[in-house]
Amino acid sequence: MSRMRREHGLCIVVVAWFLLAMPAWAQPLPSWNEGPVKTSILNFIQAATDRSSKDFVPPPERIAVFDNDGTLWAEQPLYFQAAFAFDRVKALAPRHPEWKTQQPFKGLLENDMKAVGDSGKKGLAQIMAATHAGMTTDEFAATVAGWIASARHPRFNRPYTDLVYQPMQELLEHLRSNGFKTFIVSGGGVEFMRPWTEKVYGIPPEQVVGSSGVTQFKAGPDGKPVLAKLDKVEFVDDGPGKPAGINRFIGRRPVLAFGNSDGDLQMLQWTAAGSGVRFIGIVHHTDAQREWAYDRKSHIGRLDKALDEANAKGWILVDMKRDWNRVFAFEK
Amino acid sequence: MSRMRREHGLCIVVVAWFLLAMPAWAQPLPSWNEGPVKTSILNFIQAATDRSSKDFVPPPERIAVFDNDGTLWAEQPLYFQAAFAFDRVKALAPRHPEWKTQQPFKGLLENDMKAVGDSGKKGLAQIMAATHAGMTTDEFAATVAGWIASARHPRFNRPYTDLVYQPMQELLEHLRSNGFKTFIVSGGGVEFMRPWTEKVYGIPPEQVVGSSGVTQFKAGPDGKPVLAKLDKVEFVDDGPGKPAGINRFIGRRPVLAFGNSDGDLQMLQWTAAGSGVRFIGIVHHTDAQREWAYDRKSHIGRLDKALDEANAKGWILVDMKRDWNRVFAFEK
Repeated sequence: MSRMRREHGLCIVVVAWFLLAMPAWAQPLPSWNEGPVKTSILNFIQAATDRSSKDFVPPPERIAVFDNDGTLWAEQPLYFQAAFAFDRVKALAPRHPEWKTQQPFKGLLENDMKAVGDSGKKGLAQIMAATHAGMTTDEFAATVAGWIASARHPRFNRPYTDLVYQPMQELLEHLRSNGFKTFIVSGGGVEFMRPWTEKVYGIPPEQVVGSSGVTQFKAGPDGKPVLAKLDKVEFVDDGPGKPAGINRFIGRRPVLAFGNSDGDLQMLQWTAAGSGVRFIGIVHHTDAQREWAYDRKSHIGRLDKALDEANAKGWILVDMKRDWNRVFAFEK
Repeated sequence: MSRMRREHGLCIVVVAWFLLAMPAWAQPLPSWNEGPVKTSILNFIQAATDRSSKDFVPPPERIAVFDNDGTLWAEQPLYFQAAFAFDRVKALAPRHPEWKTQQPFKGLLENDMKAVGDSGKKGLAQIMAATHAGMTTDEFAATVAGWIASARHPRFNRPYTDLVYQPMQELLEHLRSNGFKTFIVSGGGVEFMRPWTEKVYGIPPEQVVGSSGVTQFKAGPDGKPVLAKLDKVEFVDDGPGKPAGINRFIGRRPVLAFGNSDGDLQMLQWTAAGSGVRFIGIVHHTDAQREWAYDRKSHIGRLDKALDEANAKGWILVDMKRDWNRVFAFEK
């Protein structure tokens, strides 16, 4: 009997371990309001993971891709990577006295955003070159990590990473607990995202696809090899670049894709064109009070063609105001 | 008592499930001979996974990268992707009567390898354009899968995928069972590898880094979007391209890297230059009987500078003849 009792004790430990390792049985997606959007998400995941369903997706094929700016975190009043670049110009200004008289730097340093805007694409490229090149990849990653830890969003006076959408966090987590592999596919710089996506989204660097500049392998000052970031665009992961990026980095067609703007349209089309069940979602910014409200006319995150296509194709439009009972985790 | 018995029965099922889910307790790396090389591998993995070790590597950082040609599978008498390209020229020849008189195609069709060789880089580029571009990514993947399933290696008269190294398969598996994420980082075409790496190596497409051509997103004949493979090189994942590729695709520095040729040198240097414990391995082809013997003078897989550096830096040289008791799984 004592051996029996020992085994029984072992059994309880093992069963407890087993249960702890299972996905939580709590109600998923608590920040999503009940309604057709939440139901469509849960139904898709249910069908994809049910072996007896005609829409079953084998685990290795459970690839889910998400745009970042405006889909996983906010993007107003300007892309957070642009805020980073602007802050870097200010931080680097003491080493560049010539910027006091050169646009677009002069405008930036004087908070004259009209002058910065007037400098156009050429000005933007100069800002990017000054802030995203001329250092090693390790130095850049440390700079990004430092900024993310210290910078504050102007409207909310909080770290930028506090502006991730709580409902999307829950969706990422729920997908992963159902065997999906979650990827970011963003027009943003891949090296701007990777230093914090694992901590903030649970998405490791190797599952982040983004725009990139050319790097050059060379010996560093101590003889150890480094990768130097050059002032040369290598890949733009936006618009038609997104399906190309998915093909190149992931090498499988996703079964779920989420975006929020016309820059995501081709990624959504590419995902939708696969055979079998697919989920195509768009975050529609409709809540000026808790977040922002913008779509067809916005300069940032314009949602126009993709909105028409979503309506025509029956893609799922997430109405932030209607479908989310909480936008940010810091809300009461 | 009957409830007790039921629980006991459940317990046995759960414990059995638990044991099955555990890494095998069989002796790891059975195709590796006992000796300093096998010991160094096992010691590295032991230290990296031991929380009390000063060389402990947290699971997310357990990135292991492997060259493919000559490291995971054979590469003689010519890179298998070249064999694929040559076979494709022969298969496509009926649609290209002009090839009967044009080099390098004429030489290929007549098995005149000297003529093919004389056509140089330009000829090789023509062969690549004719066999790797001008189709969609889906069409190319299907072509590769068909070739892999049907082509035979000239020396062994077996599918090319039978020429994967059994000891390296065991190493991949042993690393994964210890929480490592295994990646291929190859000079070969990424779209040539992905159709079969998951089945053959257990490495999914999203963990394969390789050379690539530009793809173009466009509407296919039925209106559905496709990615067309263009005749334009996008990225060469060889030499200094390997650390750049690792940075771009993986975004983390590996803790283990395995190669076999000078094309892997910068990848090995980049891995070795990280802080903390590292494992740098080189497969040295020393077994003309079971496989091939070549190094400093070889046109394919030349191992010269990296051999010097391995000796100077104490990297682990795997002597195929000495360290492997089995090269291929099909050996008796």
